[in-house]
Amino acid sequence: MTNIPENTLDPVELTKALINHPSVTPVDAGAMDRVQQTLESLGFACERLKFGEIENLYARRGTASPNLCFAGHTDVVPEGALDGWRSDPFAATIENGVLTGRGAVDMKGGIAAWIAAVSRFEQVPGSLSFLITGDEEGEALDGTKKVVEHLRQTGEVIDHCIVGEPTSSAVLGDMIKVGRRGSINATITVTGKQGHVAYPQRALNPIPVLVAIMAELDGRVLDEGYERFLPSNLEITTFDVANKTTNLIPQTATGRINIRFNPTHSGASLQAWIEEVCARQAERSGAAIEVKAAISGEAFLTEAGPFVDVIQDAIRDVLKVEADPSTTGGTSDARFIRALCPVVEFGLVGQTMHQVNEATPVQDLYDLTDAYAALIAKYFKVFA
Amino acid sequence: MTNIPENTLDPVELTKALINHPSVTPVDAGAMDRVQQTLESLGFACERLKFGEIENLYARRGTASPNLCFAGHTDVVPEGALDGWRSDPFAATIENGVLTGRGAVDMKGGIAAWIAAVSRFEQVPGSLSFLITGDEEGEALDGTKKVVEHLRQTGEVIDHCIVGEPTSSAVLGDMIKVGRRGSINATITVTGKQGHVAYPQRALNPIPVLVAIMAELDGRVLDEGYERFLPSNLEITTFDVANKTTNLIPQTATGRINIRFNPTHSGASLQAWIEEVCARQAERSGAAIEVKAAISGEAFLTEAGPFVDVIQDAIRDVLKVEADPSTTGGTSDARFIRALCPVVEFGLVGQTMHQVNEATPVQDLYDLTDAYAALIAKYFKVFA
Ligand SMILES: [Zn+2]
Ligand SMILES: [Zn+2]
Repeated sequence: MTNIPENTLDPVELTKALINHPSVTPVDAGAMDRVQQTLESLGFACERLKFGEIENLYARRGTASPNLCFAGHTDVVPEGALDGWRSDPFAATIENGVLTGRGAVDMKGGIAAWIAAVSRFEQVPGSLSFLITGDEEGEALDGTKKVVEHLRQTGEVIDHCIVGEPTSSAVLGDMIKVGRRGSINATITVTGKQGHVAYPQRALNPIPVLVAIMAELDGRVLDEGYERFLPSNLEITTFDVANKTTNLIPQTATGRINIRFNPTHSGASLQAWIEEVCARQAERSGAAIEVKAAISGEAFLTEAGPFVDVIQDAIRDVLKVEADPSTTGGTSDARFIRALCPVVEFGLVGQTMHQVNEATPVQDLYDLTDAYAALIAKYFKVFA
Repeated sequence: MTNIPENTLDPVELTKALINHPSVTPVDAGAMDRVQQTLESLGFACERLKFGEIENLYARRGTASPNLCFAGHTDVVPEGALDGWRSDPFAATIENGVLTGRGAVDMKGGIAAWIAAVSRFEQVPGSLSFLITGDEEGEALDGTKKVVEHLRQTGEVIDHCIVGEPTSSAVLGDMIKVGRRGSINATITVTGKQGHVAYPQRALNPIPVLVAIMAELDGRVLDEGYERFLPSNLEITTFDVANKTTNLIPQTATGRINIRFNPTHSGASLQAWIEEVCARQAERSGAAIEVKAAISGEAFLTEAGPFVDVIQDAIRDVLKVEADPSTTGGTSDARFIRALCPVVEFGLVGQTMHQVNEATPVQDLYDLTDAYAALIAKYFKVFA
């Protein structure tokens, strides 16, 4: 057990308190109020931003530059199969040094650790801020995206941002995320002409057209990778006709793809490629083809440099591990924040996130708090 | 209006009577009794054959060879959109010389015309017989297929068979069917491994595997045609995944194909080819692939010769048109009967079959009766 410095917050107590608010997206259940009250007690000026039914919070202490922001989310994914849990997912329980509860690692534990770290600093030569949303696990339409728009409109400057997602892989600190791949979904609908299989010349079967499109899209090697990124990857995620009649040529076939792409590509360039392939197959086949594309995030990379160094140095000093600056995994709210400033993600071990019995060793919460505190100290030494 | 020879049956009255029994497969609604009573009144010995819930009838007059059989079905397809009908589909109505009702052309009209033609012959130098089923429009499992098995087991000999399906295209007699393509359905299920699109190396997406299979199956030119047959044709009839989650690689993809094939192929040879393609893609991809094939009919052809000549001659003499000996269209019960004897299909104009307002000109019923009577007379002149 780590000694908690006197007159500072205990990250374990705060994690437990946050878990006990069952804030499954889009429900807040008082979680945001709990964060706000805690930050106000530490001298932060809090601005609540409600978009739609979603609670968001921007809090800042200090007015000087640089402004180091911590971003996170209070919402959690549903508990899943309740009978798989060893304890109530929304009543945090500690047993054998392990804290169990929904949100323990993703990411109420991360928020609590950063707040506890901040409580160790009476002041910094600059500003500390928080961008906390209740809509990360959901549609993410009324969360960080809208807060970032608001901050930009009001001229608020953030210099650097740490996102507290559970990026560690096997042990605390072994991985940070310095970029994320972009993501685009495209739904392709091919409309032909229905008919009887015995009279194919009177019909236009949309399925072979969609098969040809999918074969072409899936067949392209998008790239061989980019700096710290894996090669971009396309997956066909569904293909549907739902024709129950064996002797009927159906009218419509619909498929959907997802591409996770590195900075070799932009969402727009990939969308244009998909549309070009579909237009050519429409021309060739005579079928009508509709493409609906949705870019859920562009690829981004926070390049090696002093900000990444500060984080890796803090991890090395406190946790005695070398943090791998990775770009793997799904998307996160970092995709919105990177429009404002360089952003790096660093948090707890993510192995149990989104699963039953989501849990973290209590010691990891204390160690993460120590690492965050070291990070804050180093940051202002380098950037102030 | 044609003169109905004295003491013979009126095909229009009999068609109306049959239509008024709403015999939608598998329901009989008294239609078979009506046929049987009429045939008994003409001196036929009737054997009722009930398989499952299906009524079937084999009737014969005479014991000598040759035995000319007429095959047909009393069941009809459902009425469909009731409000599209100009009159009750199960209450035959004549207006402006057109008889409307479900089964008018497919094929209560055909049955009535043949019975009316038979009523003009007190005897023939051989035998006349009827094979009537109530399961042609449905699964066709308990209908003609089982009757044919029964006739074979009892040693019943049929020398030639006319099936009264509505084969005429634009005008009565312009087309007869001397063969039919075979048909095979195959359902292919590819099972991979579910996972997150951001971690494709931990998953195995079944969709590209099924896309590759479908592209290969659909890409083969099966043949260039065979004698009177069009080239064999493969249609992909469905392709389903039903994955609603954009970031999920699904576990399973299922597709179905139908092949209509000419005598270049057998159902077994096509099934073996499909299984070979799937086995190769399973090997290549590591996915598990299951193929379920069902051969619903083999291709067959009644070659040009005296039997086809008799039919074409009768049509030429009575209807003044040249009948095209075609092999186009879907399957029919001829696929079962051809195991017993040469079979040719000839009947009314099929344009309204299976549609709302199924109808035939009354004159066509009289003309078809005349043509059938000429056919019977010529048949026994040639074969007796
Ligand atoms: Zn998260
Ligand atoms: Zn029919």
